[in-house]
Amino acid sequence: MKTLDEIIKNRRSTRSYKTAPVEKEKIMQMLEAARLAPSACNAQPWKFIVVETPELKNGVFKEGLNNLVVPNKWAGDAPVIIVVCSQTKFFVHNIAEKIQDVDYHLIDLGIACEHLVLKAEELGLGTCYIGWFRGKEIKKILNLPSSYKVECLITLGYAKDSDIKPTPRKALEEIAEFR
Amino acid sequence: MKTLDEIIKNRRSTRSYKTAPVEKEKIMQMLEAARLAPSACNAQPWKFIVVETPELKNGVFKEGLNNLVVPNKWAGDAPVIIVVCSQTKFFVHNIAEKIQDVDYHLIDLGIACEHLVLKAEELGLGTCYIGWFRGKEIKKILNLPSSYKVECLITLGYAKDSDIKPTPRKALEEIAEFR
Repeated sequence: MKTLDEIIKNRRSTRSYKTAPVEKEKIMQMLEAARLAPSACNAQPWKFIVVETPELKNGVFKEGLNNLVVPNKWAGDAPVIIVVCSQTKFFVHNIAEKIQDVDYHLIDLGIACEHLVLKAEELGLGTCYIGWFRGKEIKKILNLPSSYKVECLITLGYAKDSDIKPTPRKALEEIAEFR
Repeated sequence: MKTLDEIIKNRRSTRSYKTAPVEKEKIMQMLEAARLAPSACNAQPWKFIVVETPELKNGVFKEGLNNLVVPNKWAGDAPVIIVVCSQTKFFVHNIAEKIQDVDYHLIDLGIACEHLVLKAEELGLGTCYIGWFRGKEIKKILNLPSSYKVECLITLGYAKDSDIKPTPRKALEEIAEFR
């Protein structure tokens, strides 16, 4: 069994995938972890569209990820692309965001996505957040409701390279202080 | 040892705290978990101000949390308040946000905060995200640089009530679909 520290420490942004499909049972466990995430006003403003049909997945890749300034070519090899959308239709939530000038729903999305990503790591799966994409094209291909907004993508699959080096992080003194 | 599932399942928004202080060693472990979080362009746009000195903490509470529309009175009893700020001074990061119309730094903050919150839960500590606060007043009290923006607060301490009921969540079918 992996400890939380091990899971957090060993997670990598995986940009090279084996062709092996991902077991549905594992994806369900990841979604369950995301489902339990906390959110402002318990709004749960998230929608996870798990795209695994080759044709649709290739459409999302070709129209939504390829031919961008930032090279995302590797994403075409991932057997699964999870399209993460927000749906902010909650009145109190919206007023609060306006008053505070903070998009809570994005903090909420980060929380839920990371539950999913940590669970994937525990299950031996690789993931990578993608922030550069064409949201409108992806919505069109997946025929998503107009109330949905694509906020990020997460690629998912078994890592080809099991020894990805960690990305450097700032020192603790740079990001935290005690008062 | 707690599994990731147990940690995620048992985490609660803790709104009632014992007066017992929180061991610095535990806070350091929480910060280390947050430090390792992934972020767009590895920008790590987070700053965690751990406020535990009674005078300052009461100042943050009185000026930043009390007398709001939403009652946060319970937060005055938390022995620690973590003020989570963003500092977005990264050029590429900013351009990307403008192009994509997504505030990545808030997704990043959600990810890092949740590492911290899950680690707290593993260590037997209670936390609660707070989204309603007076950011400018809090910045003034803590004398934070103008480049910092207070994005959320996290209260921290030992829960008085060890049996907080879980908040209901949407069914999996409501938040996820396979394509």
